[in-house]
Amino acid sequence: MSALVDPDGRIVRESGRHLHANDGPGGVIATVVRSARACLESAPYPPRAVGIAVAAQVDPRTGTVIHAPNLGWRDVPLARRLADELGGRVYVVNDARAATFAEWRFGAGAGEDDLFCLFLGTGVGGSAVLGGQLLEGGTHAAGEVGHMTIVSGGRKCHCPNWGCFESYVGGWAIGERAREAVRDDPAAGTALVARAGTAAAISAQTVFQEYRTGDALSRRLVRDTERYLTDGAVGVVNAFNPNLLILGGGLIAGMPEFVPAVEAAVRARCQPPAAFARVTRARFAEAAPMVGAAALARARYLSSSTGSRRMRARVR
Amino acid sequence: MSALVDPDGRIVRESGRHLHANDGPGGVIATVVRSARACLESAPYPPRAVGIAVAAQVDPRTGTVIHAPNLGWRDVPLARRLADELGGRVYVVNDARAATFAEWRFGAGAGEDDLFCLFLGTGVGGSAVLGGQLLEGGTHAAGEVGHMTIVSGGRKCHCPNWGCFESYVGGWAIGERAREAVRDDPAAGTALVARAGTAAAISAQTVFQEYRTGDALSRRLVRDTERYLTDGAVGVVNAFNPNLLILGGGLIAGMPEFVPAVEAAVRARCQPPAAFARVTRARFAEAAPMVGAAALARARYLSSSTGSRRMRARVR
Repeated sequence: MSALVDPDGRIVRESGRHLHANDGPGGVIATVVRSARACLESAPYPPRAVGIAVAAQVDPRTGTVIHAPNLGWRDVPLARRLADELGGRVYVVNDARAATFAEWRFGAGAGEDDLFCLFLGTGVGGSAVLGGQLLEGGTHAAGEVGHMTIVSGGRKCHCPNWGCFESYVGGWAIGERAREAVRDDPAAGTALVARAGTAAAISAQTVFQEYRTGDALSRRLVRDTERYLTDGAVGVVNAFNPNLLILGGGLIAGMPEFVPAVEAAVRARCQPPAAFARVTRARFAEAAPMVGAAALARARYLSSSTGSRRMRARVR
Repeated sequence: MSALVDPDGRIVRESGRHLHANDGPGGVIATVVRSARACLESAPYPPRAVGIAVAAQVDPRTGTVIHAPNLGWRDVPLARRLADELGGRVYVVNDARAATFAEWRFGAGAGEDDLFCLFLGTGVGGSAVLGGQLLEGGTHAAGEVGHMTIVSGGRKCHCPNWGCFESYVGGWAIGERAREAVRDDPAAGTALVARAGTAAAISAQTVFQEYRTGDALSRRLVRDTERYLTDGAVGVVNAFNPNLLILGGGLIAGMPEFVPAVEAAVRARCQPPAAFARVTRARFAEAAPMVGAAALARARYLSSSTGSRRMRARVR
């Protein structure tokens, strides 16, 4: 998905193209270029700064995708290859970090220089702004709280660890816990199986839908999820000490009542200095990484020598 | 305890005075002033910068101790009161943050701008340097990973949360777990009771001593502690993504074999980008907060307008 984004974070034009990871880097990059060009047709002048958000470990200085598990990429010089096609400066950024930048500059975190964004979707990601700096970390992965251990010796995660936050509240994990519960007690699972078609098709979505109908097993699964979520969120707030915790992603879209539940837990169970943190819902939805990548690209371009020269010229 | 510290972090003169928290702020401050004056007698000129490390939530801009649970203080303007007595600029800093600064500038973390210091003593504290910045957090408590939840629904902590990292690996918690184990199985606990005198007197120290003699219960308690420690450390490294994890405090002094155990866990179980982090033992022991507070005071003084004016004058 591509967009032309104005300096205030508003989307001027959007162009969505479906990516197929098994097209390989060449195919994916060609799709991104077509989609970006479709947007740039509306631009008043050729792009000076292009930002790309990727669900990957990224070196933001070189724009290389170091490792993208979902795409199956390793060491793809994405910025360089896109710059060849699109012109301008291309900045590549991790998607959670880009989305956090969007929330910080234009969204739920505007005006707050100490915040943590927790994205609860199929996976659990996060990123922090502390002291007005977007944290990078030693290998560009700071804020990956989805892989904090919250149940010592607990469930196997998709990562090499056990008991990770994500292995309880990630969308895949909620589905897995639901399917296990149905296997252990098929009578309790009839509503979930009926909704999904088969026991194997039960997902987090199925659980949330049946929760709304009052199904007892779904209610227990949601209650357990809330407990794991609050336990993890209390740890995140104690560890990072933000003034604001922003919650986003599909889990929050499906269960917005988790936001006040997390706020109550932070207030009651965090250490006194950390317990003042406010908890709020993200403003942007799926567009957050795209808007944030564009804004980060603009900010980095303007602080670069070319950018500041152009800015000075414009001011004169 | 006070020290005169040179610009390379070396202690030139030390003066230890025992503090009694129940003397109240007035009595404690008088003791600190006497101890500091004893050191300053050796100084070639009156102090320009004085640094004070306190086990407390501190506002580093004003030098006010916001909350010091061990001292029972709230909102004590420590920097102002010490400046009245000692002259010079007085900087007050949280002890974990000061110790981290010492390790970063002169110790195990010298030359590394992305590191996390984990201090394992009676309590569990921590502090991070990321991108060459000592993290503060919204209310000056970033890095308090002792209160990350590592066992959802687990043991009650001394803080308002349950299942905190500290409530398993803090010195008080190891003692508590040992006493519970002895109560549950008195026959297994005979060596621990004999060592401590009474079951109620068993502490973490007792466990480490009996571990060295091969006592089976103590070995189990140490093995459990190692498991909780590695689970927590994997979470810290995934969440903060340091290039270096520095371990310090009494737990590591008593059980240095925990350092390679943590390193092996980080290597095997962290996310690929974070798993490269090295793990090492802190260089400084009890003196770390003092050395770090002095160095931080010096750095802040030199970056202040008075300090930089004097520096410029000296360079000319």
